[in-house]
Amino acid sequence: MPDLNPCAADPRLLWAPQAWVQGQWRSDVVLTVDVNGQLLEVCTGMAAPPGATRLPGPVLPGMVNAHSHAFQRAFAGLAERRSGERDDFWSWRDRMYAVALRVTPEQLHAIATQLYTEMLRGGYTQVCEFHYLHHDADGSRYADPAEMSLALVQAAQDAGIGITLLPVLYQRAGFTQATLREDQRRFASTVELVRTLSSRVNALMSPLARAGLAVHSLRAAPAEAVQELALQARFLDGPVHIHIAEQTAEVDDCLAATGLRPIEWLARHVPLDHRWHLVHATHTTPGEIEAVRRSGAGVVICPSTEANLGDGLCDLPGWLASDTPLSIGSDSHMSRSWVDELRWLEYGQRLALRRRNVAAAPELGLASTAARLFDRSIAGGAAAAGFERWGLVEGARADLLVLDADAPGLLGVPDSHRLDALVFATNALAFTEVWVAGQRRLEQGLHIRQREARAGFAHAMRELWAEL
Amino acid sequence: MPDLNPCAADPRLLWAPQAWVQGQWRSDVVLTVDVNGQLLEVCTGMAAPPGATRLPGPVLPGMVNAHSHAFQRAFAGLAERRSGERDDFWSWRDRMYAVALRVTPEQLHAIATQLYTEMLRGGYTQVCEFHYLHHDADGSRYADPAEMSLALVQAAQDAGIGITLLPVLYQRAGFTQATLREDQRRFASTVELVRTLSSRVNALMSPLARAGLAVHSLRAAPAEAVQELALQARFLDGPVHIHIAEQTAEVDDCLAATGLRPIEWLARHVPLDHRWHLVHATHTTPGEIEAVRRSGAGVVICPSTEANLGDGLCDLPGWLASDTPLSIGSDSHMSRSWVDELRWLEYGQRLALRRRNVAAAPELGLASTAARLFDRSIAGGAAAAGFERWGLVEGARADLLVLDADAPGLLGVPDSHRLDALVFATNALAFTEVWVAGQRRLEQGLHIRQREARAGFAHAMRELWAEL
Repeated sequence: MPDLNPCAADPRLLWAPQAWVQGQWRSDVVLTVDVNGQLLEVCTGMAAPPGATRLPGPVLPGMVNAHSHAFQRAFAGLAERRSGERDDFWSWRDRMYAVALRVTPEQLHAIATQLYTEMLRGGYTQVCEFHYLHHDADGSRYADPAEMSLALVQAAQDAGIGITLLPVLYQRAGFTQATLREDQRRFASTVELVRTLSSRVNALMSPLARAGLAVHSLRAAPAEAVQELALQARFLDGPVHIHIAEQTAEVDDCLAATGLRPIEWLARHVPLDHRWHLVHATHTTPGEIEAVRRSGAGVVICPSTEANLGDGLCDLPGWLASDTPLSIGSDSHMSRSWVDELRWLEYGQRLALRRRNVAAAPELGLASTAARLFDRSIAGGAAAAGFERWGLVEGARADLLVLDADAPGLLGVPDSHRLDALVFATNALAFTEVWVAGQRRLEQGLHIRQREARAGFAHAMRELWAEL
Repeated sequence: MPDLNPCAADPRLLWAPQAWVQGQWRSDVVLTVDVNGQLLEVCTGMAAPPGATRLPGPVLPGMVNAHSHAFQRAFAGLAERRSGERDDFWSWRDRMYAVALRVTPEQLHAIATQLYTEMLRGGYTQVCEFHYLHHDADGSRYADPAEMSLALVQAAQDAGIGITLLPVLYQRAGFTQATLREDQRRFASTVELVRTLSSRVNALMSPLARAGLAVHSLRAAPAEAVQELALQARFLDGPVHIHIAEQTAEVDDCLAATGLRPIEWLARHVPLDHRWHLVHATHTTPGEIEAVRRSGAGVVICPSTEANLGDGLCDLPGWLASDTPLSIGSDSHMSRSWVDELRWLEYGQRLALRRRNVAAAPELGLASTAARLFDRSIAGGAAAAGFERWGLVEGARADLLVLDADAPGLLGVPDSHRLDALVFATNALAFTEVWVAGQRRLEQGLHIRQREARAGFAHAMRELWAEL
């Protein structure tokens, strides 16, 4: 007799008391995971089948961290002092470069491994690495040009997080400069190099590693190189990322050099499409938002880093209304929790606009601020990382976050308000388990390789900061 | 032979590898605690004496939470939706009142007990309860008028946190109203009532409970009542708190009713002194800041609540430069972590001013943003809670926070930068032990009565939110 219940037929069955399926909590959810760690089926309203693994709490899909510079994790908390009259993005960058100039491939691996375990604890299951630290400390090429890229991929494998490596094109120090600064020597790159690095990662055929391309920013690459990369990207599969309009000085310099604002220039001179993701996009006009919307490109917002660097607040109402794909990134890694990012994305708007629940849209049936931001970031993050299917849907990778329903902030909260309470009322990390591709990476709130990751990180930190 | 080493002579000795003593990390610190839980002596550079308890990490002094409405904890995460065109402080308040009208003394005790265990986890060891929920749900008096006040004090005792109860004078619905709204009936109070409630708490002679007085706001009490309370406060020991200038509408209403802005009015018509603490003080002019500075009064900032409610950002540079005592409060309890509050106090300023390390003052030798905010909040918080001595100094209560130096964000950070990293780079709660009055309340990051507190809270939440 054929088995008529497809949810009971295949390799691995997981059962959750509740799960966030297509924008709402559903009860008694059975997730069928195939041997490749993909979801074969998502069934709701079903008792746990015999042999199913019972997940110990309500389940959310994993979140994509759409913007990361892993090496900056070693610098988190070490630039929160001011020596002179003014400290801003640019003075921060000078200090950050001092770390960038020192990190070895072994240190990068150790830093990224710890960082990625922290990301998993914070509910990220895929990270987009915006990677520009290509060469050796003196600017010379490594014997294998992919040395640093592969250190990041190896770190992701060791932590068990998915990675989308985005090798970055970086060619000049500013709009009016032809070359890099001496302290940018490790970033030097051609379109050919970044294509090669991207291909190397894709050639691994790893279920957890993929690659795209990136341009550091319009100030860091001449128009022809950006356009050449855009052209070549059309023949590749992965996403294309670019830092843009993070700083007002960058907007001013672009205007002076080209007569156009950065997003204006990009939308006019590059054939943007859904594979392009604009990182920060903080300083915009309504016309620029409309241009991005028409192009199909997405936007990556990094609230905690943008706050730390004093970048400013993006036009969140404008981006939300435009239906632009939105994702979030931890960028400099002051925070490694998407809960923090969504909370302060909304709070920044409340402070600026002096009203509440800015991201909610009751007129569209989207009354919950948290649910709207979460669903938009889930979908936008998937696009930014190059996934066609993501979340608790058939064909997506089985990436799951299991909530501790007894965590402070969730305890006693009615099911209907759980996502609101998670985003706005929890302090500590509230995930008890995190699964990636059907494998458990976090148990009882702790990463399964926490001990090794910490030891390696502490060693790298001692080497890097011996003089402090 | 007399014992010549005072640190080895008395009842309890604690030893810490490092401790934050008078604004800096000191190594090998011996804390002598007397039988009343007070610090008899703080010695640095000393090996652990025989029999001393070795604290498992670097030690900070406990933080005062200078503004709390405990019952609002039951509401955290349940107002993050919008139904109409606009949501703001006032629409939030209407929904908050619905909870205020329902809470029983038993529920208040359960909610506050859980809240206070969460505060201890977040590094607060003393809480100022701004308490206006005086009467029964229908507005009638409880047989004991101190019923609700004592429920809060009992909760603090059960959790083992210090409490400064501030019974609140609340008499009218607004500047132009003579009486309360129907849904404010539980708040009705006279100067005599709040004095009585304050005396009742002080009469307990508890080492962990003390009391002061409060006025809800200028809109909630007529001038004569505010002045009478101010007069009577001169004969009492405790602090006096008032909500002020949180909302622009309140500033406008005060101007319309009196011709003066709220802080202007208060400074002109009330003999402010160091016992007064102005809660929020968000919307100010330089003249108002100068008037507060001259008076000696302090200011209580509540960054996470002010963000949640869309109140706006205070003039932090102005307050810091004026040397006004500053403290922080968790207020509506969306966050129960002072680390969160200090981080976002600074980040809000960075976003608004587009520069970094706003709170640092290298010209005064205060280069670290975190250290300046921490030391100011420690000192201002002590004043707000009515303590003359606070911190790791002789004569202060032995309230200690023991850091987990291996927590993500602290791991591998050089000692010199530990406080910076705590405030800016940790995500989860990073305290492994918390001591109040020489007693351990938190062990391995968990409150010693966590289980009972959670059960009581969950029960109260089920009763309160049965309909959701």
